[in-house]
Amino acid sequence: MTSRSEALGQLRGLRVLKGHGTGNDFVLVPDPDAAVELTPEQVRALTDRHSGLGADGVLRVVPTATSPEVAEQADVARWFMDYRNADGSVAEMCGNGARVFARYLVDSGLEDGGQFSIATRGGACAVRIETNGDVTVDMGTASTPAQRAMPVVSLHHRSWNGSSVLVPNPHCVVFLDDPDELVALDLTVAPLVQPRAVFPDGVNVEFAHRVGAHAERHVRMRVHERGVGETLSCGTGACAVMVVAAARDDAAVQTSYTVDVPGGTVVVTRRADLRLELRGPAELVAQATIGGV
Amino acid sequence: MTSRSEALGQLRGLRVLKGHGTGNDFVLVPDPDAAVELTPEQVRALTDRHSGLGADGVLRVVPTATSPEVAEQADVARWFMDYRNADGSVAEMCGNGARVFARYLVDSGLEDGGQFSIATRGGACAVRIETNGDVTVDMGTASTPAQRAMPVVSLHHRSWNGSSVLVPNPHCVVFLDDPDELVALDLTVAPLVQPRAVFPDGVNVEFAHRVGAHAERHVRMRVHERGVGETLSCGTGACAVMVVAAARDDAAVQTSYTVDVPGGTVVVTRRADLRLELRGPAELVAQATIGGV
Repeated sequence: MTSRSEALGQLRGLRVLKGHGTGNDFVLVPDPDAAVELTPEQVRALTDRHSGLGADGVLRVVPTATSPEVAEQADVARWFMDYRNADGSVAEMCGNGARVFARYLVDSGLEDGGQFSIATRGGACAVRIETNGDVTVDMGTASTPAQRAMPVVSLHHRSWNGSSVLVPNPHCVVFLDDPDELVALDLTVAPLVQPRAVFPDGVNVEFAHRVGAHAERHVRMRVHERGVGETLSCGTGACAVMVVAAARDDAAVQTSYTVDVPGGTVVVTRRADLRLELRGPAELVAQATIGGV
Repeated sequence: MTSRSEALGQLRGLRVLKGHGTGNDFVLVPDPDAAVELTPEQVRALTDRHSGLGADGVLRVVPTATSPEVAEQADVARWFMDYRNADGSVAEMCGNGARVFARYLVDSGLEDGGQFSIATRGGACAVRIETNGDVTVDMGTASTPAQRAMPVVSLHHRSWNGSSVLVPNPHCVVFLDDPDELVALDLTVAPLVQPRAVFPDGVNVEFAHRVGAHAERHVRMRVHERGVGETLSCGTGACAVMVVAAARDDAAVQTSYTVDVPGGTVVVTRRADLRLELRGPAELVAQATIGGV
């Protein structure tokens, strides 16, 4: 028996769900009594795509008040999104994860719908359930790195000028003129971004191009996430692309862009107060109990 | 809503399981009343690794007697393994799938354990539950293609002589001398096998090397499956590698090899009657119900 199947065996009987937002998928672990301790090895076993349920991350659903790390958010957010990456590490925030988390809270009756906040390690996050079932998440504001050098992105002997955006995690966005070029990119290797000093902790790289006329405010993108590789969707990446597109289009502060990602479509809106909202679908795929019959 | 999520929506309430054998994973669909019709689109939705449960294939568990395609096997095999590839196509047989299928039949009380047969589109298949929980599957006999040309396998400007084996699906096995070479191979692209006439319908390619002394009868392998890419495990591929290894070692007819695949370890035994048996672990990961809360 492998260590991975042992780790899964320890979770026998655990009730979980699987859900996704534009192809970014999660195992949800409802834990109303704050009774589930998940080790990194157990997270890796759950998220393993062949020997586990498979997912990009785990979202434990636990009361904010009983979670010391975020207990100070308990007056604004009843439920804490305890997010773990598939590699077992702890993470602050995930826009697509927040949508799926909110979908679960409403579908299970833990929240009433409309607007509410969820607690995250990155602070309380406002979400809104739209009438068509989409979920909108407040992603905060975007900024540019203090180090102002214009980064150059290289991939397979080609290079482009990129634009740096912090959401607040680091992104470098390249706009391409040719849609065929976006399709043809080989993102199985990580693009190189220089000078490295701009992004000392690595960087997510987005390639994008405009769809239709400027006035349509519609872009298409692909993303290479640092430490992961190409993914079907990246919420902060969509926000970064929107900010760069709006600058290129000389758009008003208050504006919305439709952003096609490989896993679906999201809408990023910049409000008058400069905060970004990420809107898109969130679906629950299945309820599951770990272990056999 | 995408067509994939619509297809999954049609299956809302369906009870399934997920299981795997050495990393080759399956969604099992128990269907004792032969009441579940799965369209190719629904199979693709179930097996999608991001918007579905994720798997290499689907195993519907249905009584042999009520399945016209295999009803003539009903006197020897009570349950029919209705196997579908992840792309929705129908397949005859899958050694790792048969192990997981047998594990489910025994764990759910549909078979008593010990030895029994399961019906497949490739004919009835004998399985045996070992005392340590491993499952052994009779894989039939291996042969060599009628077209006898020695194939040459090329990958990234290198080439090797390969050995052709039918199990009965087509395989081409390359033995490497250097273990490091096996680790370093880039199997994200399909190896080229020439002359193409040897394998008109394409071929699975295995790269292998010996582990330890000849007498240990132990090999390690990686496999590129036609139409799929590199996989964690391939039951017929392990059989093909064993046959070639035994020929290289001038082993007796009746012999066993331990075969390390990326997803674990299996044992392939050639019996005195030349039939091959594939033995290895099979685990049920979770029980699930399609749809949200």
